[in-house]
Order: sequence, then C-alpha cells, then structure tokens
Amino acid sequence: MRLVAFKENGRSGLAVRCSGDSFHGLREGEPGYPGTLDRFLQLDRTQRAAAVQALRRGAPVDLTAVEMLPPLQNPGKIICVGLNYRDHASESGMQLPDYPTLFARFCSSLVAHRAPIVRPCDSDRLDYEGELVAVIGKGGRRIPKESALEHVAGYSIFNDSSVRDFQLRTPQWTMGKNFDGTGAFGPTFVTADELPPGARGLAIETRLNGEIMQRASTDDLIFDVPTLVSLISVGITLAPGDLIVTGTPSGVGGARKPPLFMKPGDLCEVEIERIGILSNEVVEESALQVDVT
Amino acid sequence: MRLVAFKENGRSGLAVRCSGDSFHGLREGEPGYPGTLDRFLQLDRTQRAAAVQALRRGAPVDLTAVEMLPPLQNPGKIICVGLNYRDHASESGMQLPDYPTLFARFCSSLVAHRAPIVRPCDSDRLDYEGELVAVIGKGGRRIPKESALEHVAGYSIFNDSSVRDFQLRTPQWTMGKNFDGTGAFGPTFVTADELPPGARGLAIETRLNGEIMQRASTDDLIFDVPTLVSLISVGITLAPGDLIVTGTPSGVGGARKPPLFMKPGDLCEVEIERIGILSNEVVEESALQVDVT
Repeated sequence: MRLVAFKENGRSGLAVRCSGDSFHGLREGEPGYPGTLDRFLQLDRTQRAAAVQALRRGAPVDLTAVEMLPPLQNPGKIICVGLNYRDHASESGMQLPDYPTLFARFCSSLVAHRAPIVRPCDSDRLDYEGELVAVIGKGGRRIPKESALEHVAGYSIFNDSSVRDFQLRTPQWTMGKNFDGTGAFGPTFVTADELPPGARGLAIETRLNGEIMQRASTDDLIFDVPTLVSLISVGITLAPGDLIVTGTPSGVGGARKPPLFMKPGDLCEVEIERIGILSNEVVEESALQVDVT
Repeated sequence: MRLVAFKENGRSGLAVRCSGDSFHGLREGEPGYPGTLDRFLQLDRTQRAAAVQALRRGAPVDLTAVEMLPPLQNPGKIICVGLNYRDHASESGMQLPDYPTLFARFCSSLVAHRAPIVRPCDSDRLDYEGELVAVIGKGGRRIPKESALEHVAGYSIFNDSSVRDFQLRTPQWTMGKNFDGTGAFGPTFVTADELPPGARGLAIETRLNGEIMQRASTDDLIFDVPTLVSLISVGITLAPGDLIVTGTPSGVGGARKPPLFMKPGDLCEVEIERIGILSNEVVEESALQVDVT
C-alpha cells in the first residue's frame, strides 16, 4: 500500500494508491477522514483497515495538482544515523563504526516533496544526503533483532540536507542538521509488505540537476533496519510514527574534490527503487519570508 | 508565578502557587482546566491570564500527595547545550567552545520530580548533570539577542543524566543522552518575571546522597540564555514550549578521579536558587517492568 499526505485549499488530506497511478483520499472535515498518517499509525490493525477502506472510497486526488506534505508531519522522534555506508564513513575521514552513530532532527526542519530546500543566508555549504527512512508502526523497548521488522510499518525517502560548516563547528552535528527547510521527506509512505524485508537490495540514487551524485544499494548499509531498531530500542522506547533515517552513501558534495555544494536553482532528487522519487528545488533563504520577531 | 503539572487518580492536572506554599489547580475534566503546560504556553496573553484565574479558583492541591509530572510532557524540541560552563568543558578534556555545542533529547527520556532515574542494565556509568532549563514562550526565527528574553516564558530544573559509555561510544552523544528514564525535569515552572533577567546570578548545586557534587552560578554560563536563544534561532524556528537545557557545571562523576557514578538507591538532587529542588532516586532498570515486545 502507498499513502501520501497532501494539502488542498488549506485542508490536509491523506490518499491511498488504488490502481495504477490513481490515488483516492479524504480531506479534513470529510466523513471518514482518518487524520494524518501520524495519527493513522496510532490506530490498531482493524481501525487501520477501516481507514484505508474509507480512503479508497474517497474522491480521486490529482497528486500533480495538490501541495504535498511530508508523509508524517510531527513524528515523535526523528532518529538519524550517520556514517552507515562503508564508503561514506571512509570519505568523511571516520573510522568504520562498530555501533550506530545517532543524531536527531527536529520536526521544524522537515519539508515536503516539491517544497524548496532552503539554503540559509549564513552558509554556502548546503549538502545533499539521500537516505532510506524506516517508519515505526508498533512501539517497544529492547526489541530483539529477530522480530524487529514486525515493528516497522513502512518506508519512505529522506534528503538529510546538511549545512556542513555549522555541522562541523562543534563536536555535535545538531545545528547543521536542523536548519529550517533542510529535511526533505516523502513523497510516498510505502508499507513494508510491498518491499523486500528490511527494504534490502534496493537501489538508492541522489541526482543533482540530473547528474548522479550518490549511487548505492540499501544492502550496503553497515547497520541494517532490523539491527537499528534493535540497537536503538536498547535504550529508547520506540513509538508508532517514529522515524529512523538510515544514513547516506558516499558521494556527498562536501567530500568531493573540489567540494560541490547545492546552490539556489538546483534540483535535487533522491530515488529509491520501488519507493519513488523525492524531488526538491534549492532556494535561497532570502527569497522566502522569514519571521523575524 | 509558579506552575506545576501533576497527576491524581489517573487524571492530569495543572496547579499554580497562590500564597506561601499553597497550590491551587484543576484536573482534566474539571471546568476551566486549561490543559497541560505545553498547551498553556500556546495560549495568547489574555487566554493565559484567564487560565491562571481559573487555576487559582480551583481546589487546593497537596503536592506531597500527588504524582508530579514533568512541567512539560511533550515539548516540540528539547535542545541541550554541552560544555557550557568553563570548568566542565575543561574537565571533559574539551576546548573552550566559541559556538554552543547542541544535542537533542527525545521526550521519551523525560521523568518527573520524585520519579526514579533509571540505570539501564547495560551500563554502570550513569552520571548526573544539574542544569537550568529555559522554556520558550514566544516562537521565532533569527531572534536578536537584545530581544531574546521576550521569547522566554520561564525556567525550570533538569538533571541531564547521561549513560557515559553509550554517550562516548560514537562521535555523537545521542544514545547516551536518551535512555528512557534519564531526563529528570521539574518540579516547578517559574515564570521569567520572578527571576533576574536570563535567570542570571543563581546558585546551582547538584547533590548526591546529600553531598555536593556540582556547585556554580548561572553567571558562569559561557553562552547565556539570550545568546543561546539568538544563536539557535539563526537556523531553527523556536516554538512555544521548546526547552533549552543550558548545560552543566564541573563536577560530573565521569570526570572525577576515581570516577563516581550513580547507583541504585542513590538520591540525586539538583537545586537552583529561587527555582527549587529537583529530587530523584536512582533505581535499577530490572526493578521496573520493561515492555519487551
């Protein structure tokens, strides 16, 4: 099953793919609207099935005509994994990790498919990072690796855009990973049953203005999805809707010689086989209205 | 004004100090209950005043008889500052920072005053960190330092307990800072008008089993509250209810020779002058029911 969150005439909506490329859905205020995907993932199995039936009976949604939203707009946790592809750890001058390197994003940094990724006026070092996202469907603590995939509801795509100078300014990467308008996420949430277990063996590719910048297979993850779910939940209770953003392959702009950063007008696309394409144009912050208070 | 969040007979409540040590408040379902403090901080000035009046007219609340809750239970962001006292940066073997080192906590790690801080069964290196918390009352991006304090609604106390071996296992501290039951927060939210501007000049002290482990003044912060609000909001839109956990003074257990970590049965107290005392007993994880799913 493939779900997308959208906005039309100021109202949020949720749509499900029915046949071919046709999506049907419901908007806030329409009878049977199950709420956002964040809320949908809180439902039990029976409630989810009823919600999907209601969405299928909804009107067709033309995804080219509506504003897309991040599949989840307010996940309780956005847990990102650094250095999780062998080649990327090495290009970053880091040792191969024996434990996942985790950092956090705040929801305030999220942007949707087709929304602009914003290059802040403080930096010209905005870098792309194409990544697979695992979305938790069933919470838990100390989840064994063997049953970890039962806790994953589905997958999506992330462009973990990073403001490199801010990221590396202190020992912790938080600031450079949390600028407003840098965490592109979507467009589609694909349920786990549509993909190989753990979303393994999928080609992942990042293109900048059509040119391939990163290309790998999700098989190259050092810590795969079940391992991440298990290791993270050693300490942290996972909840439905939590995101695990699994890390980026080699080829980031900051590690190139000479470095290559994104600039206003660029089009950045992250494609993952059988999941879709996340596409965002880069704009300059000054081109947007900023709330200076 | 001093507010506390509590739970009684399964119902959440919010109380305000009226005179002396007497608190009055309302519980979920009672007429006029304004919701949690997270919600209260979303209200405008007029609505907040009405909410406070309603709380004052509520029944007395015996804070010794109810379960305390963290003042905010679901802040949108918990932004923590590392190495923000000169002596602590130096005892940690870190250079004095010229920019704040930020990391994130997830809400799942929060515990209330008088609730147990949990030592996980994976580690015997659970360390205390007494800290001042600034709570955002008015959101914004690129907030000038000069007006930054207008964005701070009030202050509280945090024990940013850290599982040191997990914290230092990878380049990013996230895992060691996010174990369930390690982020003690509360008990009281004190509005900014009751304290010196920026909560400056307040004595802060951490005691373990009555013995003073950390003692400093909030004047010793390298980056004070207005500087933090301003620098963080360069990139990150702050919203009402966001927490800035401002960092810990020297004296942490991990930097002592020999190291001194918290163990089950210990009582850890963090006191900040004019704000209050946050008190938590340490328990072993195995003593609690863990949701293994």
